[in-house]
Amino acid sequence: MPNILFEKCAISGIGETAYVRGSGKSETALQMEASLRAIADAGLSPKDIDGVIPYATGSAVAEDFITNFGIADLRLSATTPLGGAGCIAAVQNAVGAIVAGIANHVLIPIGRNGYSGARIGSRVQQLPQFRTVGEFEMPLGQIAPVQLYAQMARRHMETFGTKSEHFGKIAVTIREHATMNENTLMTEPLTLEQHQNSRMISDPLRLFDCCLESDGGAAIVISSGERARDLKSKPVYIMGIAEGHPDSPSAITQRPDMTTLGTAKAAPRAFGMAGVDHKDIDVAEIYDCFTYIVLCQLEDLGFCKKGEGGDFVASTSLGLDGPMPINTHGGLLSQAHIIGMNHIVELAKQLRGEAGKAQVRDAKIGLVTGYGDMGDGGVAIMRA
Amino acid sequence: MPNILFEKCAISGIGETAYVRGSGKSETALQMEASLRAIADAGLSPKDIDGVIPYATGSAVAEDFITNFGIADLRLSATTPLGGAGCIAAVQNAVGAIVAGIANHVLIPIGRNGYSGARIGSRVQQLPQFRTVGEFEMPLGQIAPVQLYAQMARRHMETFGTKSEHFGKIAVTIREHATMNENTLMTEPLTLEQHQNSRMISDPLRLFDCCLESDGGAAIVISSGERARDLKSKPVYIMGIAEGHPDSPSAITQRPDMTTLGTAKAAPRAFGMAGVDHKDIDVAEIYDCFTYIVLCQLEDLGFCKKGEGGDFVASTSLGLDGPMPINTHGGLLSQAHIIGMNHIVELAKQLRGEAGKAQVRDAKIGLVTGYGDMGDGGVAIMRA
Repeated sequence: MPNILFEKCAISGIGETAYVRGSGKSETALQMEASLRAIADAGLSPKDIDGVIPYATGSAVAEDFITNFGIADLRLSATTPLGGAGCIAAVQNAVGAIVAGIANHVLIPIGRNGYSGARIGSRVQQLPQFRTVGEFEMPLGQIAPVQLYAQMARRHMETFGTKSEHFGKIAVTIREHATMNENTLMTEPLTLEQHQNSRMISDPLRLFDCCLESDGGAAIVISSGERARDLKSKPVYIMGIAEGHPDSPSAITQRPDMTTLGTAKAAPRAFGMAGVDHKDIDVAEIYDCFTYIVLCQLEDLGFCKKGEGGDFVASTSLGLDGPMPINTHGGLLSQAHIIGMNHIVELAKQLRGEAGKAQVRDAKIGLVTGYGDMGDGGVAIMRA
Repeated sequence: MPNILFEKCAISGIGETAYVRGSGKSETALQMEASLRAIADAGLSPKDIDGVIPYATGSAVAEDFITNFGIADLRLSATTPLGGAGCIAAVQNAVGAIVAGIANHVLIPIGRNGYSGARIGSRVQQLPQFRTVGEFEMPLGQIAPVQLYAQMARRHMETFGTKSEHFGKIAVTIREHATMNENTLMTEPLTLEQHQNSRMISDPLRLFDCCLESDGGAAIVISSGERARDLKSKPVYIMGIAEGHPDSPSAITQRPDMTTLGTAKAAPRAFGMAGVDHKDIDVAEIYDCFTYIVLCQLEDLGFCKKGEGGDFVASTSLGLDGPMPINTHGGLLSQAHIIGMNHIVELAKQLRGEAGKAQVRDAKIGLVTGYGDMGDGGVAIMRA
């Protein structure tokens, strides 16, 4: 399979703020800080940005970047309202704009006070894409994301025999990676026993199956491959990218298959576009709002068959000693919840060879996913 | 100048509902109805749609189309929150997705109950992009769009000697075109005297300087030129397309130049991309939320110099007997306010030779604009 996007688009710059609990900064300020770092990392000036894809909640809008950066001629502004799959969908959107010659340098910023400001669950009911969840699940008192995900996890356990210990192994591995990272909320190792003894939040999901509430910002700049090669940092080329939506309806309990995500539709397209196979993936940063969602994505991505995620996780190391280390930064579970933009930044670091203690040796091709809104998936495959 | 988008993307289908006051249907239903007509016009099945760019207010979301149309694998969903420039920005977004091979058939639907449901003004304060308007203008009691636009019009009159009669001529010409259209709210001709005698809404803007509040839906399908050629209707190729944002800040009274819109930035890019000149434009559908905004766009598009819009309008026919008829459907002023999607549909009709009584003879190349959020502009140039 040829790579149809061959060196056409690349991540030219990456930036992150400190990930903390209690930033003392506005969400807009966090985005500006992370964006300025990404722009500097690319060796660009803020005025060079001519496309921006702000996060769909409106915590910052295109005008904020025009004003703060003095952008004279912004050519692209859009949003991708797919929740945690929004960052990957935004990269896809930027790729379209760059390939079509609409924009040259597209900034994708994320900044949120998920700890000190608005919690994710507090916004769910207001989002128009949750109308069917509002009709079928919320009237039964299922309002917080963890309650909704608990049902998906339970169905998987009942159908396929998946166990809480499988979720636990994912949590333990990702925590181990977080401890190698300096910019992370969780710094102490986690044992499977601690996971199993942690309090139940929404059966079967325990405390350590759940992602963090954190404050921080992260950003990337996407440029054409040609331009990126002339810039300061090593280009990280986008080989394949896709978004996918689950089968209708989006209400979780009404879906034909509760255990399959939009990721299952995005993955074959992303792999096909990239022209690579699963065995080619050296490192994977997998959206981890809950441990179960990592396991489910490993299936939907095609690393194992549907229903075999438990066995796959039990028999395969997902750590630095394994064939495909996952969430080498600590993920949403142990680093911070930056809506998956921290996953994209980490993959770029890995492929640039700048991942520090968690660097995967000879990481040449990597995969990163986004996942959100109760079923939307995003998959990107990259190489340096 | 070569056309860099040469036959790469086209409008493959167009659809409209009846434009009325009091639709008795939901905004989602209006979008489905218009969309089904656009899809049928292209000779496609609803299941063929693999991209959708719903309007940013969330009145319908990607999931609504997946569910109602049975779309198995939606590959692109995004929104373009630029108010009345959003439809053109959505076309630009679709162009990127198609050129990059992300999606094959992108649906852009609009449906709103601007008369019987939420009025435009009622939403302005909630939009994050209006933060600076909220800081500088709204505390002075300027809350309805007409109040904000009145200041822009007054500044133009004071700086350049533009007169209310210039605005009136625009209203009269567009009304004349509306009377030739069967799907229109305003069916009776308007005289300049009636315009001048109409009641003042917000000085200097009178009743007939203001667009309609109406209910209805309109939609288009964008496909690759190659695919569009095999479909049912005549492809309308997108030659050039651009969005543009005004200089910072977006607060109207704080801008360096209150009389220049983002259109002035989008226009040279759209013309350059299309490889055509102003004299090549046979017909123009210009976003007309207020008469003044048409005059201002004629300047910003480059049909005359800044400040000469009044003279240009006075000395040039904008009707079917002139060199470049505008708003041949009746526009937002006299047909209906479908956020400019009715402008795009009308341009496609003109270029396909299906515009009925208002058909511009030998219309080969046409222009359509979007305008919104107090300064954002969109410009597209098309041919059949």
